[in-house]
Amino acid sequence: MSDNSTAEGGSPSARQDVPDEPPVVYRLDPDCTIDEIAEGANYLVTVNGVVDYGVFVDVTDSVSGLVHESGLDGEYAVDEELVVRLAEIRENGDLAFEEIDPADHKVVHVEHEPEITPIDELQRGKTVTVEGDLSQIKQTGGPTIFHVGDETGIVATAAFEEAGVRAYPEVGLGDIVRVNGEVGLHDDVKQIEADDISPLEDETADAARERLEEARSERAAPEAVEPLVEWDAFEKLRPDLAELARLLRRTVLEGRPIRVRHHADGDGMCAAVPVERALSNFIESVHDDPDASRHLFKRLPAKAPFYEMEDVTRDLNFALEGRARHGQQLPFLLMLDNGSTEEDVPAYKNLAHYDMPIAVVDHHHPDPEAVGPLLDAHVNPYMYDEDYSITTGMMCVELARMIDPETTDDLRHVPAVAGISDRSNADAMADYIVLAEEEGYDHEALHDIGEALDYAAHWLRYSSGHSVVSDALNVGCDDQDRHEELVEFLSSSAERDVEEQLDAVDTHVKHEVLESDARLYRIDLDKWAHRFTYPAPGKTTGELHDTKVQETGDPVITIGYGPDFAVLRSDGVRLDIPRMVEELNEELPGAGVSGGGHLVVGSIKFVKGRREQVIDALVEKMADADIDEALSSTATAFDE
Amino acid sequence: MSDNSTAEGGSPSARQDVPDEPPVVYRLDPDCTIDEIAEGANYLVTVNGVVDYGVFVDVTDSVSGLVHESGLDGEYAVDEELVVRLAEIRENGDLAFEEIDPADHKVVHVEHEPEITPIDELQRGKTVTVEGDLSQIKQTGGPTIFHVGDETGIVATAAFEEAGVRAYPEVGLGDIVRVNGEVGLHDDVKQIEADDISPLEDETADAARERLEEARSERAAPEAVEPLVEWDAFEKLRPDLAELARLLRRTVLEGRPIRVRHHADGDGMCAAVPVERALSNFIESVHDDPDASRHLFKRLPAKAPFYEMEDVTRDLNFALEGRARHGQQLPFLLMLDNGSTEEDVPAYKNLAHYDMPIAVVDHHHPDPEAVGPLLDAHVNPYMYDEDYSITTGMMCVELARMIDPETTDDLRHVPAVAGISDRSNADAMADYIVLAEEEGYDHEALHDIGEALDYAAHWLRYSSGHSVVSDALNVGCDDQDRHEELVEFLSSSAERDVEEQLDAVDTHVKHEVLESDARLYRIDLDKWAHRFTYPAPGKTTGELHDTKVQETGDPVITIGYGPDFAVLRSDGVRLDIPRMVEELNEELPGAGVSGGGHLVVGSIKFVKGRREQVIDALVEKMADADIDEALSSTATAFDE
Amino acid sequence: MSDNSTAEGGSPSARQDVPDEPPVVYRLDPDCTIDEIAEGANYLVTVNGVVDYGVFVDVTDSVSGLVHESGLDGEYAVDEELVVRLAEIRENGDLAFEEIDPADHKVVHVEHEPEITPIDELQRGKTVTVEGDLSQIKQTGGPTIFHVGDETGIVATAAFEEAGVRAYPEVGLGDIVRVNGEVGLHDDVKQIEADDISPLEDETADAARERLEEARSERAAPEAVEPLVEWDAFEKLRPDLAELARLLRRTVLEGRPIRVRHHADGDGMCAAVPVERALSNFIESVHDDPDASRHLFKRLPAKAPFYEMEDVTRDLNFALEGRARHGQQLPFLLMLDNGSTEEDVPAYKNLAHYDMPIAVVDHHHPDPEAVGPLLDAHVNPYMYDEDYSITTGMMCVELARMIDPETTDDLRHVPAVAGISDRSNADAMADYIVLAEEEGYDHEALHDIGEALDYAAHWLRYSSGHSVVSDALNVGCDDQDRHEELVEFLSSSAERDVEEQLDAVDTHVKHEVLESDARLYRIDLDKWAHRFTYPAPGKTTGELHDTKVQETGDPVITIGYGPDFAVLRSDGVRLDIPRMVEELNEELPGAGVSGGGHLVVGSIKFVKGRREQVIDALVEKMADADIDEALSSTATAFDE
Repeated sequence: MSDNSTAEGGSPSARQDVPDEPPVVYRLDPDCTIDEIAEGANYLVTVNGVVDYGVFVDVTDSVSGLVHESGLDGEYAVDEELVVRLAEIRENGDLAFEEIDPADHKVVHVEHEPEITPIDELQRGKTVTVEGDLSQIKQTGGPTIFHVGDETGIVATAAFEEAGVRAYPEVGLGDIVRVNGEVGLHDDVKQIEADDISPLEDETADAARERLEEARSERAAPEAVEPLVEWDAFEKLRPDLAELARLLRRTVLEGRPIRVRHHADGDGMCAAVPVERALSNFIESVHDDPDASRHLFKRLPAKAPFYEMEDVTRDLNFALEGRARHGQQLPFLLMLDNGSTEEDVPAYKNLAHYDMPIAVVDHHHPDPEAVGPLLDAHVNPYMYDEDYSITTGMMCVELARMIDPETTDDLRHVPAVAGISDRSNADAMADYIVLAEEEGYDHEALHDIGEALDYAAHWLRYSSGHSVVSDALNVGCDDQDRHEELVEFLSSSAERDVEEQLDAVDTHVKHEVLESDARLYRIDLDKWAHRFTYPAPGKTTGELHDTKVQETGDPVITIGYGPDFAVLRSDGVRLDIPRMVEELNEELPGAGVSGGGHLVVGSIKFVKGRREQVIDALVEKMADADIDEALSSTATAFDE
Repeated sequence: MSDNSTAEGGSPSARQDVPDEPPVVYRLDPDCTIDEIAEGANYLVTVNGVVDYGVFVDVTDSVSGLVHESGLDGEYAVDEELVVRLAEIRENGDLAFEEIDPADHKVVHVEHEPEITPIDELQRGKTVTVEGDLSQIKQTGGPTIFHVGDETGIVATAAFEEAGVRAYPEVGLGDIVRVNGEVGLHDDVKQIEADDISPLEDETADAARERLEEARSERAAPEAVEPLVEWDAFEKLRPDLAELARLLRRTVLEGRPIRVRHHADGDGMCAAVPVERALSNFIESVHDDPDASRHLFKRLPAKAPFYEMEDVTRDLNFALEGRARHGQQLPFLLMLDNGSTEEDVPAYKNLAHYDMPIAVVDHHHPDPEAVGPLLDAHVNPYMYDEDYSITTGMMCVELARMIDPETTDDLRHVPAVAGISDRSNADAMADYIVLAEEEGYDHEALHDIGEALDYAAHWLRYSSGHSVVSDALNVGCDDQDRHEELVEFLSSSAERDVEEQLDAVDTHVKHEVLESDARLYRIDLDKWAHRFTYPAPGKTTGELHDTKVQETGDPVITIGYGPDFAVLRSDGVRLDIPRMVEELNEELPGAGVSGGGHLVVGSIKFVKGRREQVIDALVEKMADADIDEALSSTATAFDE
Repeated sequence: MSDNSTAEGGSPSARQDVPDEPPVVYRLDPDCTIDEIAEGANYLVTVNGVVDYGVFVDVTDSVSGLVHESGLDGEYAVDEELVVRLAEIRENGDLAFEEIDPADHKVVHVEHEPEITPIDELQRGKTVTVEGDLSQIKQTGGPTIFHVGDETGIVATAAFEEAGVRAYPEVGLGDIVRVNGEVGLHDDVKQIEADDISPLEDETADAARERLEEARSERAAPEAVEPLVEWDAFEKLRPDLAELARLLRRTVLEGRPIRVRHHADGDGMCAAVPVERALSNFIESVHDDPDASRHLFKRLPAKAPFYEMEDVTRDLNFALEGRARHGQQLPFLLMLDNGSTEEDVPAYKNLAHYDMPIAVVDHHHPDPEAVGPLLDAHVNPYMYDEDYSITTGMMCVELARMIDPETTDDLRHVPAVAGISDRSNADAMADYIVLAEEEGYDHEALHDIGEALDYAAHWLRYSSGHSVVSDALNVGCDDQDRHEELVEFLSSSAERDVEEQLDAVDTHVKHEVLESDARLYRIDLDKWAHRFTYPAPGKTTGELHDTKVQETGDPVITIGYGPDFAVLRSDGVRLDIPRMVEELNEELPGAGVSGGGHLVVGSIKFVKGRREQVIDALVEKMADADIDEALSSTATAFDE
């Protein structure tokens, strides 16, 4: 109660001792209730009736009592004020006062302390007071809509000043407010029609914020889930994932939108879909509004191996529109299976200025020194001396389960899909596959799901394809047959197209044996492959490479190139592509070489007119590269 | 009435004879009305008053009467039950009962049989009962919206369980239900606020479904329309079209969405626009909601000569989203001027699994054995030994008229546009042109409309361009001047662009005379034509070809090729392009040749690096091809 | 009042002399009020009570009085009619009548003249009459929504005939109507629920229309604003701009939508954003609806240097959809920094037929004879012997201020950005820069904003990027830091990409000194530049050119070319590109040369196979071109 009494004094609450010294007289807000007075305390009251045995006095609008003539010193007319002491609260509820000498008392104003209703207990038709911070303020053509969040949920509150005019301009995003009003429905979702919105201030606000923070931190804590499989290497990453789960739950509790950009391939989908599902569930539980996740969560594919300028510009514009039009906070950006490299730095640098938190879960070779300082979280196996074989899908299944453990039953097969899709050679793969088999997926089914996702991603281009992707991955799909039919359709189409492509390039692949005894395969994809179709150059090179590795069993390097790009894949040879790019840039000025990748997978760009020199120089470097039979390329090369 | 009495017995309805044997006593539902009782029948009743001349008894909440002491055997207190026979319904409505011995009677429970209101007779403010099946179940943030359809229409029904919680989870799509509630308005459209939704079960449901089926079948029957012109060849297709009209009307009556994919050229538009109009009208009449067709009908252009994987993926995702978000049934897919060939098979195979019926109306050379088993309907003149000269536009005008004869006045000129646009040489063309002339269109106007549609389709790319296309074709355009201006603008722009293109390529066309005396024209479109503009390679080749045919009067073959494709056109030479593709694939491994077409029109793809060999081999084959002066290419080649 | 009395006679209003001759008896509408009667006038009245001292009579529903027996000739029963003269309106409001002989009088019907409420004074809950013309008629599934506009604003009015059925089919767009109804709220915006909508007719309508026209003309008058800087050259254009401001304000007052197509570069943005802001403000003030500008204003970038067929087709379809679906008028098309040349003529010709007014503000070399007759307004410095150095951004800042002077504070820095972005060498640039400096922008900041806009435009492609563009230009951005961060991010990214591009091309630029001593630089951008990224060929050529001009100080021509296009830039040499295109077309048939530009900037297209000849011929012409050191190219060349 002390939070709400003004600074000068204590509280008259019956739940506290009444202070005798210094003598205090309380002046109560008219809306204070019987619960806010206490026997023995002194009150400034107003006469509302004079009878021959005393005067009736009002303490507040709803609290009255009698000063018997025996306890009355002066004479009072109606509406006069006097100072009294509450002598007794009788059993029948009657209050008996006695007048005291006001001379040496100090008046303390007591604000009404209403009963605060937790947001998740709001009932339609009730008049309530809620307390929380403002997570969104949307000006409509009519009322202003304030989204107020406490530790239990977030609710919309409509306040009307004048059509289209911002109500309560004195409160802003993040402010702690107290809202009084009636709970109604808007578009069938609970909404408070505000009678009053008041900012809490100073210590009161601080204390409330502290309470809110504490409660939210507690609720944000990730759920404890048992690992799906025992895997020591993975456990090193678990604390990072738990921290990110906390951050994301926290973000939802704060009503901030979340935008996911994920690599548009099998592993990327296996990462993004579980997180989408878990966060959508959590958002809906916080908002008690089935549409909330549509407004607050967005998943989008990323075509390039880094955060492209086109995507950044669009995301930023979208974020700013969300703020301008809907009064939303800027979104939290979550990069999945993408975003770990230096090429992402410029984008991150800018977004950081924009109050857009960024987190990355990725298993591509990272540049943690470059990106780390710009990220709010960065989970990557390479930072723990592990490698790509812990795929992003594997990590995100655990992340999703920490956010919402109830997703678990839908996700047991997903790590196996992710691992097969990205050709993880992790020891744990066997366990993941057993787990999936227990759910009814054999190895071929898992492989087909990965291919189906990859194929769907290709044709969906810039659209997220929510339903088709969920059905293909069988996460939240309510019909097993449909899932199987879809996967069969997509994966067999993919297989057919890959076969056609390999048929087309087959006779044109150039083969040589390098000095290191590694085999080098080269293919001009612009000339010999079907263009602008599936599989695109990256996937085509990968499929060709895999065929050659399988056929020969030797160390193999494969280069697929077009007019101004080349895709590189290696098994058994250490290429170190970033270094090669650096060297090529020095050796071939004006070739405009750029690109990325790591030891065994990469893609580079150059200007069309220097293609021959670039490819020749590359081959030369590859001839000198060390054999390392442990190294194997994954299928994670990005498509052109 | 028997539908609703429980299984044990018959009915006491006055409309039936009262059974004497076996002796039956009816226990009526409290909400049964006076219409549900009959003189001579026995009832289990409850005493509601005792007077000295007898007892007053309640048969139901609204049906009461007197058992006169003369007909009373026992003594009864209020609330006691007894068995009586309805001796007489007096003229003033009074009911006279007499007690009977209940010993050897069998009690039969009679459910109240409410009056069922046909959906097209719903009146705002009335409380009604409707009966029908569920065509859509949409969960909103508030109530669940059930779309209920009977033989007269479909109406939305809102039922509220808890905000965002599915009401009546026991009923599902396709179930037959009885809905009781008040007719209100939602967004200005009639909607029932449900007090109760109960599934009918077992025989009752079967009988209701049978009635509904029968009534719908009757309503689905296509309207009898007189052919616009007398044409025997066309009449062979009429039964197929009527069957498809029935299927589409039926689909609408069942509340299933319809999605049209049509070839993006003149004939394709002439096919799709009339069908769009007729179906939209019918949808609106069934739903009594002008917005219904926006939710339930979608027309989209198809750029490729077959159902492309990108389109399939998007359509499927859209269909699944419609189900997930709006509780819609998956759509009926209608392919127009497209979809008859083997290349469509993979897509169809998958969609069939998805409960997405598919129908095709096309005049491209079909592969009926491949696609036939996958389609719910396939109308194609080649299946009746007719050919492309019966254009899809001609067929779809008749189809549209069968769906909604009132479209006729808007469509009389459309077959002529379709025929000229696709250069039909059908005998009936003369009649179609006369028909159009009677509507005020001369030959040039009809030609210009076709060119305008083709031009608009090019620039609209993936958008349907509803208004601009309707105005250009003058279907549902309310302003003749606007139509004419638009056609003038589009067709003259098209003509100018074609001229510029032909000017550009003119001096670069290579000409030779084949051994067969046919003339062969070749043009490298990548090198000599304006790229990425109108006319695209297919149209450019066609226009060039037509010019040469007209100039020479000889048999002519034209090949327009780019880096990895070639477009073929022939007049007077039998090419049989599918066979050529097959042969090329054998002769040139690694050329990745694919493609399609028929005797005189086709397009093929290959890998860039084998262009020369492919073109050379093609020319060789053409030199050997038979002259057949009756053969002429149409303009239906698809643009690249 | 005469407007509303029927044609036969005058008016009984107390504000006019009562006519003695010819004797007239007024029959008043039942809803006429006390204000509509006058002492001395004659009325046809109805007896509503008979007392012994006379009869009480009703003149209208709300106007009654007494005919004292002394003034009464006949005897009357209740409900009988008689003719009386209003002898006196007593101080207490009582009316005293006396009967007169009706024999030789003429009855004139007086319609009730309601009080007309100005639309900007509507109050919720009041029943009002408004008068105005119809600017939009939208049929919903429920009521018909009529947008009625008077001289003070526009308000939506709902009228219900039957769900989905057009109410009052007798009134149409543009008609002057009188609407009676209650002011309610729809989606929180004021809307009249119409009891009655009646068209005014004949002279009444004419008079009302005249009043409305006059009032609107007055309100449409552009606001008088002081020029931001003193600049005589600019003042020549001011009357044209004022006229356009009037036209645009007028367009808003008439409720017609406005669609802006602007060049997608720095100057184009500096032109479009201020106009967007001013018009949005004005639209909102007219409609009292914060969403109105979203429905009535649309800004879209144009990628080509003229009004491309794809854009025209889409705009037209959008316009027609707006009419079909929302009953909107067709939009006013405003072309900014684009649209002045002959290439725009075909598009304009068509749109003119469509009742789509078109205005152009541009500083590209115009073809006023070709486009002028098709435009409703054309503002271009070349038409006043000025040149591109008066940029479109400079003009549009003044235009925006005339439309809404309150935008001024947000716009002071914009002309400097526009000028620097388009390298204006205008004398006034110094003043503009001082102005911007006073607002806190130094030269570098201004330059960076221009680059940022250019960069954003590139990546936003076909989207308007409302928020990111507004923030980058700092117009309506409420956070200076955010603006600065965004500009820093975008401009430094742009700079980095330009550097990379120049690095890539640097060693491949071919240099020769022409006979005229000008330096010619050539670069094959397809071969040596990064493709499909920023900077595109136009910008790349410009940046290269600027570098060379700066390095050498000599007259310089730069040609950047790709497979089928070339971009030209010159400083110090008079190229006259349109003439060159014409000559090339004659000299090189089949090269398909087209293009545009003016003395020092241009781009041309040709067919791929003639590239060498075209470039060679171009170089030859350039060698012959005159040196004119005053000429300098701007950066306004359009990107490919």
